[in-house]
Amino acid sequence: MADRTDLTAFMHDLADAATAAIMPHFRAAVDVENKEAKGFDPVTIADRAGEEAMRDLILKTYPSHGVLGEEHGNHQLDASHIWVLDPIDGTRAFITGLPTWGTLIGLNENGRASLGMMAQPFIGERFHGDGKEAWLQFQGARRQLRTRACSRIEDALMCTTDPRLFMGGEQPVFKRIEQATRNTRYGTDCYGFSMVAAGQVDLVIETGLKPYDIVALIPIIEGAGGVVTDWSGGRAEQGGQVVASGDPRLHEKVLRELATA
Amino acid sequence: MADRTDLTAFMHDLADAATAAIMPHFRAAVDVENKEAKGFDPVTIADRAGEEAMRDLILKTYPSHGVLGEEHGNHQLDASHIWVLDPIDGTRAFITGLPTWGTLIGLNENGRASLGMMAQPFIGERFHGDGKEAWLQFQGARRQLRTRACSRIEDALMCTTDPRLFMGGEQPVFKRIEQATRNTRYGTDCYGFSMVAAGQVDLVIETGLKPYDIVALIPIIEGAGGVVTDWSGGRAEQGGQVVASGDPRLHEKVLRELATA
Repeated sequence: MADRTDLTAFMHDLADAATAAIMPHFRAAVDVENKEAKGFDPVTIADRAGEEAMRDLILKTYPSHGVLGEEHGNHQLDASHIWVLDPIDGTRAFITGLPTWGTLIGLNENGRASLGMMAQPFIGERFHGDGKEAWLQFQGARRQLRTRACSRIEDALMCTTDPRLFMGGEQPVFKRIEQATRNTRYGTDCYGFSMVAAGQVDLVIETGLKPYDIVALIPIIEGAGGVVTDWSGGRAEQGGQVVASGDPRLHEKVLRELATA
Repeated sequence: MADRTDLTAFMHDLADAATAAIMPHFRAAVDVENKEAKGFDPVTIADRAGEEAMRDLILKTYPSHGVLGEEHGNHQLDASHIWVLDPIDGTRAFITGLPTWGTLIGLNENGRASLGMMAQPFIGERFHGDGKEAWLQFQGARRQLRTRACSRIEDALMCTTDPRLFMGGEQPVFKRIEQATRNTRYGTDCYGFSMVAAGQVDLVIETGLKPYDIVALIPIIEGAGGVVTDWSGGRAEQGGQVVASGDPRLHEKVLRELATA
């Protein structure tokens, strides 16, 4: 079995492959008035091409590993090692031309997220972690990521992708926490979670996540000293309702609020 | 008087000066638990340093020009040429560590925005225009910007910075337009307007803008073939309620909706 260093190097290879497949489609011209006539939109094409490129590399390099992806169905999910892939997390940012989407590459070992990377191909920055440490690589330099201290909801800077995604009983609970925070920023996708790891943001609350939206981010947040769970405090690998905090003391308080949803 | 080429080169000099002043503060560590003890936050420090750097360069290079900025008060506002500066448009993105803020550099000639630049120092991309043409410079390459055709609200991709900013009668009108669009993205600041110019986004609706939030963006959007006005269809240099469209046909329809606010 490959060791951690090999696997981290391999995540960079996967990110390189995804970048090459995706970038020709970023900010490519779209004829919005004749969308139907054209068939798939650029983000779907880019998503599929990115996943295929990573999948091919995994099957060739680690034939005993499984793959869980969005576009191409699943492969060998009974394997002990499953790669969990989202070539473009933040498809709306991608469509809008904003550079706040990311390529998510996660590895589940026996059901637990053990290694992960968030790569932003346009900017060229890559966040990665193994649950014990987390790093940001950018322009040839590497710095260790640490979450920041913030124990109170009143002091917290929160992120969420879109407040319209909270449904039914989730809505009032989210609103109550939002109003209690120092500030809340929308439209963040994988960048919100990455910024928790980087010590810029204190809290992310999301709902309706798929496993491939979160697995890659768990080892980065945990490696930086943060906590990421479902709204009940359980492991977050399955997605759904997810909450991440930079400070475990804050996480405990937020879980108490979320328990009322 | 300097010609257009000189002034565009000068905008790049201003952006370089702002970048050098601002970047040391981007993603710098913040102790959120002892904010009061520290005095100003990093974004205020960076904003002031960026404005001062640009202001110094303007006073030295074009002593007859005026300056309108956020932090340092105004200078010589009776001049025919007024530089309108926002070192960090999108301070919340900046605080969050997201690279979707920008340095806005605009030039008003006799009250009309004639030249503008949006520079993103972390990514290194610069959008600029003169009302007749607009360009994106990135990694040594330059491409001309063109808005895209989109005549119907139903097909439009819209951006706004924060839906919570619409007040009173603005709120229901914004909501109605939002629900009619194909999709609406939040958290965009100057990037939403820049993406109208780039042909990625069809519509931006904002309220409560200051002159320095919009002047730099007008010659970029107009230079790319778009339209930017206040909600009544008048010039947008004064800020306030602002709407920008890539397609003049769409703009006309949206103005009719906004007239009911």
